[in-house]
Amino acid sequence: MNQPQVGATDNTSADQPGKGMAADIAEQPGVYADVLDHGAAEIARIAAIIAERRPRSIVFTARGTSDHAALYAAYLTEIRLGLPASLASPSVVTVYDARPDWSDSLVIAVSQSGGSPDLAQVVAAARASGALTLAVTNNPDSRLAGEAELHLDVRAGHERAVAATKTYTAELLTLLLLIEGIRTGTGRLDAAEATAIGKLPELASGVLATTGAAELAGRYRFASRFVTTGRGYAYPTARETALKLMETSYLPSLAFSGADLLHGPLAMTDPGVPVLAVVGSGPGGHAMWNVLTQLGKQRADVVVVGAADVPGQTARLATPAVDERFAALLDILPLQQLALHLAIERGENPDAPRGLKKVTETV
Amino acid sequence: MNQPQVGATDNTSADQPGKGMAADIAEQPGVYADVLDHGAAEIARIAAIIAERRPRSIVFTARGTSDHAALYAAYLTEIRLGLPASLASPSVVTVYDARPDWSDSLVIAVSQSGGSPDLAQVVAAARASGALTLAVTNNPDSRLAGEAELHLDVRAGHERAVAATKTYTAELLTLLLLIEGIRTGTGRLDAAEATAIGKLPELASGVLATTGAAELAGRYRFASRFVTTGRGYAYPTARETALKLMETSYLPSLAFSGADLLHGPLAMTDPGVPVLAVVGSGPGGHAMWNVLTQLGKQRADVVVVGAADVPGQTARLATPAVDERFAALLDILPLQQLALHLAIERGENPDAPRGLKKVTETV
Repeated sequence: MNQPQVGATDNTSADQPGKGMAADIAEQPGVYADVLDHGAAEIARIAAIIAERRPRSIVFTARGTSDHAALYAAYLTEIRLGLPASLASPSVVTVYDARPDWSDSLVIAVSQSGGSPDLAQVVAAARASGALTLAVTNNPDSRLAGEAELHLDVRAGHERAVAATKTYTAELLTLLLLIEGIRTGTGRLDAAEATAIGKLPELASGVLATTGAAELAGRYRFASRFVTTGRGYAYPTARETALKLMETSYLPSLAFSGADLLHGPLAMTDPGVPVLAVVGSGPGGHAMWNVLTQLGKQRADVVVVGAADVPGQTARLATPAVDERFAALLDILPLQQLALHLAIERGENPDAPRGLKKVTETV
Repeated sequence: MNQPQVGATDNTSADQPGKGMAADIAEQPGVYADVLDHGAAEIARIAAIIAERRPRSIVFTARGTSDHAALYAAYLTEIRLGLPASLASPSVVTVYDARPDWSDSLVIAVSQSGGSPDLAQVVAAARASGALTLAVTNNPDSRLAGEAELHLDVRAGHERAVAATKTYTAELLTLLLLIEGIRTGTGRLDAAEATAIGKLPELASGVLATTGAAELAGRYRFASRFVTTGRGYAYPTARETALKLMETSYLPSLAFSGADLLHGPLAMTDPGVPVLAVVGSGPGGHAMWNVLTQLGKQRADVVVVGAADVPGQTARLATPAVDERFAALLDILPLQQLALHLAIERGENPDAPRGLKKVTETV
């Protein structure tokens, strides 16, 4: 190239805003396939160790995007394992120096970088108190990975953009395989599960090949804020979508569980506020119908994400009808694309949002 | 009166917007005194029963404002009792029909009305599984109160406005007394605690007598959104403030723990977005200084709520320097006033927000 390069590195994309995030998003079907083909054996081994130790509850600790993966896993824990799950606030340990008795628990820290000191401190305290500890990260060399008794690498590879996409879904898939593996007791999935989960890479490719999200970005170019909502397994998707919109387009985005939306914030929805509603084809999706009816009464502009065709919707980001556990790995994909395209339409560079670093160190 | 009354009932205030909410807010010091003088014995009795049963963890379930009181109590549980705490999503039971094993746990449902079927269903399921159950409500005759083995009335009296204020702080105080009572094992507070808590009614009166919040409402008349933040015991205050602003002024308000704010949403703060930062005079407050420094770099407009004088703040809503556990009962007061005055300035009636009912029935 003859042209002088100004500030161009592997990690930025001065040439084309959003190029990095677009590449990260596009790699997700490949990441799913890699986790299933090359990560599953190690996940099964760890799941079998956990099943053997019979924890009485699972405590998750995480920040930001990874906290949404932890929330998804908390639903899985309670619904699929029948074990109490909680999301521990690191500040209890790091700020108030408390030591909750987690001795019967499995404590799972979820972190893309494994680099935040607070999570490492929580894991160290939990381990010292006799808890079984597991770090789920995208960095086996991180302090967090070293601090925990067990570690799982989510195998997402280098993430280009600051806003996490493929590390999030790699965390979801790893946690899904882990918890279903604990459920069987052997660490391995039963056959029907394995078949259904094995279809996710291809289904994800199909979802990413559609262009609905790019088209919607034009419609919402001038929106000043968003509301996102979902119930059960779809609620983490709503939360993660809101965070992506905030990180990349600086658009205030409020995520509510469908039920919480009816307890107050519904007053805020009006025709000027687009609502992104994640509606699955199982019980969580059915529980959203009442919410959608109420939104209709408010004359809200509703985009339905999922397999259901809902009367009164403004638009739909269609994803395949699968078990709601698996839908979390598909429904987020067009929403990541929407965040990407919206940021580009609005003149932002989602690869390098202002004020953000890839590794956030909080204590 | 000669003038015909149009639609005026005890519960609305067609004459003067916000009159009901103002009256509810003003009653809080009296509610504190009533809980301490006439509610404490029953709280101590229940706390002693719980201490005797030695639960291994406490699971909270709540919606909306009451969920913020539950979050406060979850911090108390982990820090003061050293017991794991969790906030259970009712949908696990009501939507997915799961039955997590809570047999060693105390399950506490917190609800102003006690009227939401989902919480009653969670309590019924928990009780059937062998959990000790407690309902904390403002309505002893509610279904929820009947469903639980134990019940505590928060004694806030009739709340005029739809937006909850005095029922929230009555829940906070009831839960504080309960957990400190469990801590001593006898149900009663130790003497130093009792003295400090006994000062809260007078301190609350002092806070409510200041006019800072009313003055600030003018400054933020044209703000289009808010960010609220706090750590530890102050985080529920940040969450509740955001909800109040949304319910009464329809202002999108994003609440973040100080740490989570640094993990992404910091990108959204700029000089056009006022930040309400709750900064205590203990460990949670100290942990906010790094957050305030980062907000300073973003040139954010920061209102500091609390006892600390912070360099670079735009304004301060001063509250007394007390233990951070007790600060939660004082810091929220000027923030309720801010929500009230802001709604009135913006031409809204905070007593009867659009689209909201006092009792929200979700399943």
